[in-house]
Amino acid sequence: MARAAIGSEIEKLIRLFSGLPGLGLRSARRVVLYLIKREEQLLRPLSRALEMVADSIKICSCCGNIDTTDPCCVCIDPKRDLSVICVVEDVSDLWALERARVMNSHYHVLGGVLSALDGISPHDLNIKRLIERACVPEVQEILLAVNSTVEGHTTAHYITDILGDCNVRVSRLAQGIPVGGELDYLDDGTLAAAINARTIF
Amino acid sequence: MARAAIGSEIEKLIRLFSGLPGLGLRSARRVVLYLIKREEQLLRPLSRALEMVADSIKICSCCGNIDTTDPCCVCIDPKRDLSVICVVEDVSDLWALERARVMNSHYHVLGGVLSALDGISPHDLNIKRLIERACVPEVQEILLAVNSTVEGHTTAHYITDILGDCNVRVSRLAQGIPVGGELDYLDDGTLAAAINARTIF
Repeated sequence: MARAAIGSEIEKLIRLFSGLPGLGLRSARRVVLYLIKREEQLLRPLSRALEMVADSIKICSCCGNIDTTDPCCVCIDPKRDLSVICVVEDVSDLWALERARVMNSHYHVLGGVLSALDGISPHDLNIKRLIERACVPEVQEILLAVNSTVEGHTTAHYITDILGDCNVRVSRLAQGIPVGGELDYLDDGTLAAAINARTIF
Repeated sequence: MARAAIGSEIEKLIRLFSGLPGLGLRSARRVVLYLIKREEQLLRPLSRALEMVADSIKICSCCGNIDTTDPCCVCIDPKRDLSVICVVEDVSDLWALERARVMNSHYHVLGGVLSALDGISPHDLNIKRLIERACVPEVQEILLAVNSTVEGHTTAHYITDILGDCNVRVSRLAQGIPVGGELDYLDDGTLAAAINARTIF
């Protein structure tokens, strides 16, 4: 900042916020001013909440989920269907599926997808543990809920290959038009996939 | 979150972030996951920086600026022009002018603008202290750098009125087309103001 009109502590805080996804320097300044004006309601609670999370987060050694316990609350939930493991790229995908309340299975977080460009090989992903879990007798299906990208497809093919020896069914998410989607706004690839996978009405 | 797939500490942190300006629930989740994956580089430093700011921020009793000292670094800066006080609505406006390096004056933060709709009267603004400062013999000009809104204009007129007894010149920012602006994209009001205030080339 020009001529230090802002204290260095405030400037440091702005810099930290501006590094977060979706925030730039301008929005970081706005956030910091907003926080400073709400010291007791927001600034201090946020500081404490961050510290609490830093002290308590654990990576689940079973599925790779982020939680405050290890194994995570999904892995120890007795109501979950033991026969299906839903494989996702990232914890955010696990959260999205949980919010939608569409899965009652266990999960497995890969921690990324295979990518030659980014130099991500199978050893960088949480695949070894997936094979161990897939070989447990109760497990009957591995649902590959990876993103519908080139890297996602590559990863799905790779996992399908290496799970060939395990006695499990490997499935993947259906492709087609999104619910509420309008044909006019969809890309050619999605339209082609929806037509190829058309179902009897 | 459905069926508590996320620990309550993480959920609380997401809720706090989602209340910040410009962030919603989705972006808050993204930010929190980003932070959790960078515990030592970002999560803990952010918590500490927030605490440091909470412990050290002060409102300058002279101009209303937010800083870690009182009076603030602008008010105690001996290189500043004592004859001009630049009046702004909010600390963010002060920061914007300082970033542009266009003012070497002192500032006065009103803390808002007069607004009948929001019930903001002169008593809610930092105006009493402005009158005291305007009556100091060194001060020759009060520059009203308020936003060009109806409330901003109302406030500017009000301050001009009550500063009538002080021996100061009251000025306001020029109105016209922004530098780099294209006529085709400007509103009628701005075009009219630019024509009315046209200057000899």
